[in-house]
Amino acid sequence: MANTVPGRVTLEMVAAAAGVSRGTASRVLSGSPKVSQVASTSVRAAAAQLGYRPNLSARSLVTGRSGLVGFAVNEDDDRLFTDPYFAQLVRGMHHELTGSDHALVLSLVSDSSERSRLLEFAATRLDGLLLAYGHSDPGLAEELDAVGARVVFAGRMPARGPAEHTTWVDSDSVGGARAAVEHLLERGRRCVATITGDLDMAAGFDRAEGWRQALREADLPHGDDLTAPGRFREEEGRAATEQLLARHPDLDAVFCANDLSALGALDALAAAGRRVPDDVAVVGFDDIPAAATARPPLTTVRQESELMGRRMARLLLDRLDGGTEPVQEVLPTTLVVRESS
Amino acid sequence: MANTVPGRVTLEMVAAAAGVSRGTASRVLSGSPKVSQVASTSVRAAAAQLGYRPNLSARSLVTGRSGLVGFAVNEDDDRLFTDPYFAQLVRGMHHELTGSDHALVLSLVSDSSERSRLLEFAATRLDGLLLAYGHSDPGLAEELDAVGARVVFAGRMPARGPAEHTTWVDSDSVGGARAAVEHLLERGRRCVATITGDLDMAAGFDRAEGWRQALREADLPHGDDLTAPGRFREEEGRAATEQLLARHPDLDAVFCANDLSALGALDALAAAGRRVPDDVAVVGFDDIPAAATARPPLTTVRQESELMGRRMARLLLDRLDGGTEPVQEVLPTTLVVRESS
Repeated sequence: MANTVPGRVTLEMVAAAAGVSRGTASRVLSGSPKVSQVASTSVRAAAAQLGYRPNLSARSLVTGRSGLVGFAVNEDDDRLFTDPYFAQLVRGMHHELTGSDHALVLSLVSDSSERSRLLEFAATRLDGLLLAYGHSDPGLAEELDAVGARVVFAGRMPARGPAEHTTWVDSDSVGGARAAVEHLLERGRRCVATITGDLDMAAGFDRAEGWRQALREADLPHGDDLTAPGRFREEEGRAATEQLLARHPDLDAVFCANDLSALGALDALAAAGRRVPDDVAVVGFDDIPAAATARPPLTTVRQESELMGRRMARLLLDRLDGGTEPVQEVLPTTLVVRESS
Repeated sequence: MANTVPGRVTLEMVAAAAGVSRGTASRVLSGSPKVSQVASTSVRAAAAQLGYRPNLSARSLVTGRSGLVGFAVNEDDDRLFTDPYFAQLVRGMHHELTGSDHALVLSLVSDSSERSRLLEFAATRLDGLLLAYGHSDPGLAEELDAVGARVVFAGRMPARGPAEHTTWVDSDSVGGARAAVEHLLERGRRCVATITGDLDMAAGFDRAEGWRQALREADLPHGDDLTAPGRFREEEGRAATEQLLARHPDLDAVFCANDLSALGALDALAAAGRRVPDDVAVVGFDDIPAAATARPPLTTVRQESELMGRRMARLLLDRLDGGTEPVQEVLPTTLVVRESS
């Protein structure tokens, strides 16, 4: 096609060149399946030859909709691209959105210029935004609100003003963490440490809270000396395990805030000569694919990340269709017992 | 903001409500950094209150540009979301595009309705398309061409008509595979099998070709009985290894078309009681993060997937800026020797 903006080529000109009616040309170019292969080929060839570019911007001016939904993560992008949790989330969003003719635009927010760009884009181009609110940047949610963006959050949003103001989907992190620790106690473990996630994120905070609740109710130690920060990352999970072993050589179980940090824990325990689960039991959270193939296979709290992505997209589409009530959904988690506990 | 389409609220109305000039309001809403925090807050608040939604479609009608670039994969989406190669590719694209104010739209093409949607979107909304051309669907490239889409491919495109017609970026798969096999021969291996990728994709075909060339030049066996299909997947890599061991119990090395299938091979070899590398050496391709942490750490051919994504985006942006010459780039690969060989 021409690289300069062509003199406006109309749909009528394409139809005439292809020797079909305007209606047929329109159906071909809008992707309708109700056209013959011959008509399809000739219309597309004519469109290419003439440099025709039907500009949906015109349609968008009429409907006030862009058909674009953003997925934004304000998180170092290395985690977005290495933690399968995000991949599952995106997969769910994509499935739900394509069925309703919306396209998914990927936005990363890891510095201030990307942050400005997201705000502008949300204000001017996006029908709505699916946001994985990684680190504490409370200003971002408010600024998105100020520019009129419709946002659905991945994960519980702490109350900002009236808590019911935001729409979000979360997994039952507190319940999942409690179930993991109760399982360890049933197996006879008595010194249960935890490798925490980022505590300024709901998922990190809530999983630590579930660990604490279960131990408190069992009258077992649950002090800060039994916690070490893993930041949801494998490398940090390894380092946290070393710290915990140094502080508590009698440690007999570790609950990890996600599977990646649990994989790091398995590694560090092997390096320290501790057998899993004989000496130390390990439980993760997420059930990423690598959990099942870890050595030993990892017991974990399964969260339905793909379903979470689907539900987020569904709730956003409902708002675009006129829904005004904020909705908050908590999806159940399931303990998957494998050989590490 | 209002959920119904509001009576057209103008920029002037927003400026008046915020008590600033039209120019200031415009600068705030276009994300310019040259505004005070006070002005920024009041303009955004006024815009939200009035339900102002500056419609960039109008700008887009003038420039003939949407600012949207697609990333499409015609591949089962499970691989897109589980193979870190794609994540690295997307990361590179995203970095290059955000620097030039383009947004990245994610498209999966796994059935005919998604295929129609991509064609429509490419024809009407996207400035250009970055395409990971997974499986053989030669019609897709032609149809994209017919609707006037500007496409840059990930991976060498086999000649369709004049081969120089397409723009693509690839890694040196043949050279990388040859280097891997030559390394195995230097270590004294004499029965070197290969677990192939999809042979209808350039990456699969070229890596098998490099394996064959190196063995042919060394006058060693390189027949089909020494190959088994791994389809770039871990599970299939496991099954392929079992087949190869059954056929060639004397096997002393396996070159795998990617790291995921090599991880499957490591697993199958461990299950069969073969020591790596003592009994059987294993080499992969890609250098995904899991290669370094595999047991034993995996020797692999590193390809610069993130750089490939960046270069693809750069070549597309160059075309959008008026470049008309097709460009074909082959990026070098590097052998990374670890403990598996």
